[in-house]
Amino acid sequence: MTCKILYGGDHNPEQWPREVWDADHAAFALARIDTVTLGVFDWALTQPSEDVYDFALLDEIVEVNAAAGLKIVMATGTGALPPWLAHAHPEVCRTDFEGRRHVYGQRHNACPSSPVFRRLSAALADQVARRYAGHPALVAWHVGNEYGGACYCEHCAAAFREWLRERYGSLDALNHAWNATFWSHTFSDWEQIVPPNALSEHWRGPNHTAFQGITLDYLRFTSDAMLANFVDEKAAIRRHDAAVPVTTNFMGMYRPIDYHRWAPHLDLASWDNYPPDEKSHARMALTHDLMRGLRGGAPFWLMEQTPTTTASRDVNPVKRPGVMRLWSWQAVAHGADAVLFFQMRQSRGACEKYHGAVLDHAGRTDTRSFREVAALGAELEHLGDAALGARTPARTALLFDWDSWWAVEISDGPNRHLRYQAIVTAYHRALWQAGVQLDVVPVTADLSGYDVVVAPLLHMVKGDLAQRLEAVVARGGSVLTTFLSGRVDRCDNAFLADVPGPLKELFGVRVEETDAQPPEVANPVQLDGVLAEGRLVFELLVPEGAEVVGTYGADFYAGTPAVTRHRAGGGGEAWYVGTSLDDDGVAWVVRRVVDRHGLTGPYADVADLELAVRERDGVRTAFLLHHGEKPVDVPAHAGGTDLLTGRRIAAGEALHLEPTEVIVLREDA
Amino acid sequence: MTCKILYGGDHNPEQWPREVWDADHAAFALARIDTVTLGVFDWALTQPSEDVYDFALLDEIVEVNAAAGLKIVMATGTGALPPWLAHAHPEVCRTDFEGRRHVYGQRHNACPSSPVFRRLSAALADQVARRYAGHPALVAWHVGNEYGGACYCEHCAAAFREWLRERYGSLDALNHAWNATFWSHTFSDWEQIVPPNALSEHWRGPNHTAFQGITLDYLRFTSDAMLANFVDEKAAIRRHDAAVPVTTNFMGMYRPIDYHRWAPHLDLASWDNYPPDEKSHARMALTHDLMRGLRGGAPFWLMEQTPTTTASRDVNPVKRPGVMRLWSWQAVAHGADAVLFFQMRQSRGACEKYHGAVLDHAGRTDTRSFREVAALGAELEHLGDAALGARTPARTALLFDWDSWWAVEISDGPNRHLRYQAIVTAYHRALWQAGVQLDVVPVTADLSGYDVVVAPLLHMVKGDLAQRLEAVVARGGSVLTTFLSGRVDRCDNAFLADVPGPLKELFGVRVEETDAQPPEVANPVQLDGVLAEGRLVFELLVPEGAEVVGTYGADFYAGTPAVTRHRAGGGGEAWYVGTSLDDDGVAWVVRRVVDRHGLTGPYADVADLELAVRERDGVRTAFLLHHGEKPVDVPAHAGGTDLLTGRRIAAGEALHLEPTEVIVLREDA
Amino acid sequence: MTCKILYGGDHNPEQWPREVWDADHAAFALARIDTVTLGVFDWALTQPSEDVYDFALLDEIVEVNAAAGLKIVMATGTGALPPWLAHAHPEVCRTDFEGRRHVYGQRHNACPSSPVFRRLSAALADQVARRYAGHPALVAWHVGNEYGGACYCEHCAAAFREWLRERYGSLDALNHAWNATFWSHTFSDWEQIVPPNALSEHWRGPNHTAFQGITLDYLRFTSDAMLANFVDEKAAIRRHDAAVPVTTNFMGMYRPIDYHRWAPHLDLASWDNYPPDEKSHARMALTHDLMRGLRGGAPFWLMEQTPTTTASRDVNPVKRPGVMRLWSWQAVAHGADAVLFFQMRQSRGACEKYHGAVLDHAGRTDTRSFREVAALGAELEHLGDAALGARTPARTALLFDWDSWWAVEISDGPNRHLRYQAIVTAYHRALWQAGVQLDVVPVTADLSGYDVVVAPLLHMVKGDLAQRLEAVVARGGSVLTTFLSGRVDRCDNAFLADVPGPLKELFGVRVEETDAQPPEVANPVQLDGVLAEGRLVFELLVPEGAEVVGTYGADFYAGTPAVTRHRAGGGGEAWYVGTSLDDDGVAWVVRRVVDRHGLTGPYADVADLELAVRERDGVRTAFLLHHGEKPVDVPAHAGGTDLLTGRRIAAGEALHLEPTEVIVLREDA
Repeated sequence: MTCKILYGGDHNPEQWPREVWDADHAAFALARIDTVTLGVFDWALTQPSEDVYDFALLDEIVEVNAAAGLKIVMATGTGALPPWLAHAHPEVCRTDFEGRRHVYGQRHNACPSSPVFRRLSAALADQVARRYAGHPALVAWHVGNEYGGACYCEHCAAAFREWLRERYGSLDALNHAWNATFWSHTFSDWEQIVPPNALSEHWRGPNHTAFQGITLDYLRFTSDAMLANFVDEKAAIRRHDAAVPVTTNFMGMYRPIDYHRWAPHLDLASWDNYPPDEKSHARMALTHDLMRGLRGGAPFWLMEQTPTTTASRDVNPVKRPGVMRLWSWQAVAHGADAVLFFQMRQSRGACEKYHGAVLDHAGRTDTRSFREVAALGAELEHLGDAALGARTPARTALLFDWDSWWAVEISDGPNRHLRYQAIVTAYHRALWQAGVQLDVVPVTADLSGYDVVVAPLLHMVKGDLAQRLEAVVARGGSVLTTFLSGRVDRCDNAFLADVPGPLKELFGVRVEETDAQPPEVANPVQLDGVLAEGRLVFELLVPEGAEVVGTYGADFYAGTPAVTRHRAGGGGEAWYVGTSLDDDGVAWVVRRVVDRHGLTGPYADVADLELAVRERDGVRTAFLLHHGEKPVDVPAHAGGTDLLTGRRIAAGEALHLEPTEVIVLREDA
Repeated sequence: MTCKILYGGDHNPEQWPREVWDADHAAFALARIDTVTLGVFDWALTQPSEDVYDFALLDEIVEVNAAAGLKIVMATGTGALPPWLAHAHPEVCRTDFEGRRHVYGQRHNACPSSPVFRRLSAALADQVARRYAGHPALVAWHVGNEYGGACYCEHCAAAFREWLRERYGSLDALNHAWNATFWSHTFSDWEQIVPPNALSEHWRGPNHTAFQGITLDYLRFTSDAMLANFVDEKAAIRRHDAAVPVTTNFMGMYRPIDYHRWAPHLDLASWDNYPPDEKSHARMALTHDLMRGLRGGAPFWLMEQTPTTTASRDVNPVKRPGVMRLWSWQAVAHGADAVLFFQMRQSRGACEKYHGAVLDHAGRTDTRSFREVAALGAELEHLGDAALGARTPARTALLFDWDSWWAVEISDGPNRHLRYQAIVTAYHRALWQAGVQLDVVPVTADLSGYDVVVAPLLHMVKGDLAQRLEAVVARGGSVLTTFLSGRVDRCDNAFLADVPGPLKELFGVRVEETDAQPPEVANPVQLDGVLAEGRLVFELLVPEGAEVVGTYGADFYAGTPAVTRHRAGGGGEAWYVGTSLDDDGVAWVVRRVVDRHGLTGPYADVADLELAVRERDGVRTAFLLHHGEKPVDVPAHAGGTDLLTGRRIAAGEALHLEPTEVIVLREDA
Repeated sequence: MTCKILYGGDHNPEQWPREVWDADHAAFALARIDTVTLGVFDWALTQPSEDVYDFALLDEIVEVNAAAGLKIVMATGTGALPPWLAHAHPEVCRTDFEGRRHVYGQRHNACPSSPVFRRLSAALADQVARRYAGHPALVAWHVGNEYGGACYCEHCAAAFREWLRERYGSLDALNHAWNATFWSHTFSDWEQIVPPNALSEHWRGPNHTAFQGITLDYLRFTSDAMLANFVDEKAAIRRHDAAVPVTTNFMGMYRPIDYHRWAPHLDLASWDNYPPDEKSHARMALTHDLMRGLRGGAPFWLMEQTPTTTASRDVNPVKRPGVMRLWSWQAVAHGADAVLFFQMRQSRGACEKYHGAVLDHAGRTDTRSFREVAALGAELEHLGDAALGARTPARTALLFDWDSWWAVEISDGPNRHLRYQAIVTAYHRALWQAGVQLDVVPVTADLSGYDVVVAPLLHMVKGDLAQRLEAVVARGGSVLTTFLSGRVDRCDNAFLADVPGPLKELFGVRVEETDAQPPEVANPVQLDGVLAEGRLVFELLVPEGAEVVGTYGADFYAGTPAVTRHRAGGGGEAWYVGTSLDDDGVAWVVRRVVDRHGLTGPYADVADLELAVRERDGVRTAFLLHHGEKPVDVPAHAGGTDLLTGRRIAAGEALHLEPTEVIVLREDA
């Protein structure tokens, strides 16, 4: 149906008088906008009271937009509760981590376990789907909005107990899983179990629990409970529409929701890209890859990004000239088949009043911001279907695991300053700078297609993962992991064995002690040709088969191994890094690993010049994206045609890229 | 009745045995103390239970003090609830921002909407007024104490709904005002509205709301609800006394209460001066002027200050020698007709045990502190009625607006580091250093008497303000405003127009983008002869009539305008400053503005030497106050007589002022 | 019964399968472990429901351990509530400072005033004691575990009112004690009194109260309420066993519990040593002495320490080689007759999963950590009964007072940055470095045996303390105190007299003003030969008999006294230090004081080399403990035999000590 990358975003005509609708469409035409998301926050509009549905205005909005030639992403409208619902049924509001029952306000405000909410949200989805299924403009269904947060109410407590019963079967199994004998916690009745929060197991904040087992299970339960909300609505949609893809907008590396558990239930992955700062290019690449990895490498949609500024941050800078374009092309380079904004016209009031939009409060189309939006629209139109549906040809996998994320951050000891994302992004950044085409996959993924598997902070080891990693090495591949890996089983109980537990054979190393130091303390790590630094955690390693690649330079363990490599039969290698290395150290290790497999990219030594490739039917489209602050000159890695300009580029030809410059090179066959 | 500046302060004989009363009066006589405030916290004393009033001890206190020749400021005694009231009627206690119903404790503890509290507080005021009205020693009524804080209980919720009904008339109007369509917030019944707090619209703290409209209205409602408490008590007093002025002690720049909305209900303004640090001389000048501005420039009372130290701060230094005197004269210089302390004798126990007092725990009169109090008493006695009732001859107005304060600080975007007070005090400091005689007035003030109007961060523009500012310029005057002005209407909705909305014509400039950066990032701003720095917010300005006065030096908008001046017909000028300039930058702009009107003072170039003037019947009394740490030598700006020493001073005569030195110059006619 | 220092620790076989028990015992034998603490968290095990006790497993554990030759410290098992109890009786859970009723979780979770908890905890202790009293392996009873925290529920409110009635007798007395007239707080019915917390008197955190009197009393009440829990269980034990000592594990300098009020109820003091960092040697010495001081100098037990790492800190380093041994010997040197670990085998799951243990998750006995444990076991066995029961021969007392701790830290003014522990540890550190043999005693202690009494921050002066301090000086001794001493009576009301109130005569000095400055501001203090710095609080002193020893160098009080010495009849000296001196200043003052009495130790000038002495029947055992990071060479202070090596050492012989080295010198008679 679509023959180009979709371009547009959230559109809220219901917030504006009719004359503004016309101005919107005139502007959309200028900017080659072809897609709008409608009705994300329309519950109060379409169901003004429990017994009444009223689609008059939404019908009109749909028709007017369709008439303007726009494709429609239709929301079910359950992104926020309407006031009447919270007032009539206080149970639909959440109880927070502090145990406080909330009243009406904000969004993300529905208890996922509330029977009333589940009934009425599914009913609304049913109404919306019944009404708009089959509409020719429809390109996707958008369920809810940015699922997240948590609830700790009595409904959730009951649902949690039910979830636990299904998972554990018996209280004996549960008590064993949670190591309940410790601190006299043996449960003798399911009803004794209460959600872990500030009023029960948590002694400081969400990461400080007395019992990791219950907290970890509540994180899983919360993710599942919200997934059930999505599934409720999707089922309602599928009663009326068997074909149009159903999605919801994810939030990238968002800790509360395990997107890997959600992914099988979505027809396509989509996400909202609001990076924390202007230097997030590597991080965005990682997140795009993570989102693409949710659905086995299939293209995803960039469901939201701001054309100019955010509003909810403490400081909200404008995107510099060219940056919105550069980041949009980066999304496409990593697999996006849609580039959508939040939102079309800047809010008149409330908390997104200063969030940027395609059209500002004055509706001007002669601003820098609008001109950039329109220019990108023209480019995307020009590109047509060139890369549509194309895939990333990756031979390297980065493992990403919500369970390990949760487990390592709710752990008491060894070091609270440790953050899962910090370690994963450090290894990813090194891979990204090396120009490695990469998949980011769950720990359950089939690893047989990869030459290199990088698994930082693989704290929890579940199922047959150790065997699958061993298989990579057995066939000549490389595996890399770090300190604090192989520590706990799926219940967060320690392996009663040498560390790193089930990974010990693979890496040929044993951890005898785990030291920790405050962030300001570094221990030099001598690698071949590089003197790096370790921080935070320092494992004292005893090689049992592995060779020593790097050693600590200080403290009572000076001279002992910090980094090891285990050469196994089959020519494979298993690297173990016993401390949190600095960027130089991580880069050194990563380059040793990927170089051996010839996976290093052609621009690996040019800082911030990204090369991302999509491939379809044997045709490679290479995206050169210059994130740096200074121009660079490089020889072209391949010959081909720049699809944006039509310019022919010869292999090895000198390319000059200004900051934010983009080349979309259709490589010669 | 009074023929000199009142001198004294809070006196609590009910906390002491009789023998201490006599010691107090002996000390008062030494210090020329002539005025005491009685009974601020006497509710538990005068109404020991709901059915019983008992004025025996208070009667005695009043008589003993009157007999000692002291004037009396009589409190209604409602400054704190008595325990029996909270115990019998839990509803009188507040529910806090977190939604927690409080129990008995502290002060500032009454729910302003509680029917029980309103009934009993008014009844107590009635009893007190009935009893002491007409007493010859009475000089003022003091209602409540330091009104402040907020409550979020069900009584307040109901009162808020009533307040909204009166303000908006219909839910349609309210939904429009709050932009309720956004996030599905359309209210269909008044009962659905709940106070905005941590359990409803606020996602972080009091400044982080999802809906600015409801939060802003709740701030206004809270101010009004407490005003109703004051009005209740004042009405009770007026039933017995038609003449003696009624006041309550304000707290200067206190965000929770919009004193401009209260001012018409007071007979005289009074306030408690507890500056944040020892370098607050300019800030105190601003606050004195703000308080004087409440009642159209009429003299105010300094109701409280500490003679030595505070206790409630993290760090409580003593006032250095001479500082208490200097600051007392500063108050008089800015319009105070009373100089009162908190308190006469240091508390024996509880949280003000270490708060300074005229008499310490040992009751010594040979301490430095007491000697300074006594010396000031002698000076005030010596001054007699010299400046009493005199007014500040100001041709410059500084606009101060609680609505803008609230709106800019509860805003999501562009920069949470921005503080209204920081910007206002920066502009005031420049005016103060320039020696400009100044009024600080509300945005509703008549501006026709001013040559210069300075309106920093005029975020919200209401009513005919834009026209009144235009009129200033039209008659040759100057108006100055800054970034983030002219953004929102009275409901905090963005003007659907070019920024700065209704101010655009006046300033001849359009804001196309608003950049923000963290506090540590500066952008150089080149002004004529000064290289200043901008921070926090950077507006990208497009002149539409204005000339460029300063330009940015860095970032992608280097070379574009940062400061503009619009010369309009009539010779007036409208200055627009697009970023938060450093002190040098602000001073440069402010001097350009006031110099043109000849409003710069004679000591503008002498740091920290303040000149404040009061004028009565054509006679000017000039207060020279040296706040600096080093002595200064200056030529006298005028001839006259130093009222403190009787010394003749000739115009141009060399004056030498030591740190903290004060000259009160009755200028020659 | 014991003929050597007990060695072992917490042992939790109930958390492990039987095969692990055998491995444990094999390892204990290797490490000469002879003592285990059993059943600390066994409530859920031994009382699986309200009506059922089941000791089958615990019986087996006791028998197996006794059969292995281990001595048993038997816990009553009330260290944490079982789930069924919280579920059946929600009242047993605490209500926190924020007023939130908790539900089941963690430990330290019982309301001390709950009738249900008091009944059932005593009943469990009764059951345990009935069962195991008379067991030949039993060496002590261990009640509860690490008592601490606080509760603010209705049961506690009622108990608090009862406690107040007993203390004050009448509301008049209570109102006077709390200075209730201030802020209208006069209570007219006991029922009006509510616990002071975030919902009542506290305006920021636990240290920020409007009424110090009620907060101080609630701290005392809380300590007493938990003591009542201990006493409940001890009484139950004593019904079955009249002889075996009963203890509970204290936590050193733990603010919430006034251990001096508890001490008379214990048969022996024991404590858990988890120092905040690796540089805590002086602090641990202080805490050991404080614990020893609880029971008049009798030996105490080190009930817990970690062999390797903690888990609950933000950063949990391993103990460096030799450190566990060094610190264990330090405990013995200061009076410990038991050296016990938490715990024997590392937890499988939950929040202590990464807390170190004698045996790690793999149960290895070839690790550095286990080898050090085993080596120490051998040494302790070798030492035998050599120092058992011996006492510290101290002629110097350091006063430690929970009331002053509480009072100074809940005070409004003069300086919130002031911490009681910081000042006490500063003076202790100077005494410790000077090698002074020291007792740490309560303010009620008999001081007649001491030449020197050091009483830093003696904020509250109760009973006849002033007279007892005067008596020290009268017989030629020395007394030292600091700023903010002698300020308040036992109700925290200011003395209505010159500061330092009842201490003024002794010190011959009067405080006229108390200045305070932020931590970054220093004022030089000139002492004879040392230029030190004062911070935080600066008292302006007027000598009334004392001589000036040090003067301030800056601010308006430059040149006025900062340190004074009052030489009284009898040759004694009373030192007063008016500011928080830096380490150099404190050391200078302390050395002047102790040198005069010949109490300075032989290694006073060797940094971090500790000499601690125990004496029994005239035999002195001197422990030399080298805490420094570099080796030192010193002449032996006495001749004797190193009990660890058998080596003879001659007086004056050159000793070389490596870092962490220990010599246990049985001195020649």
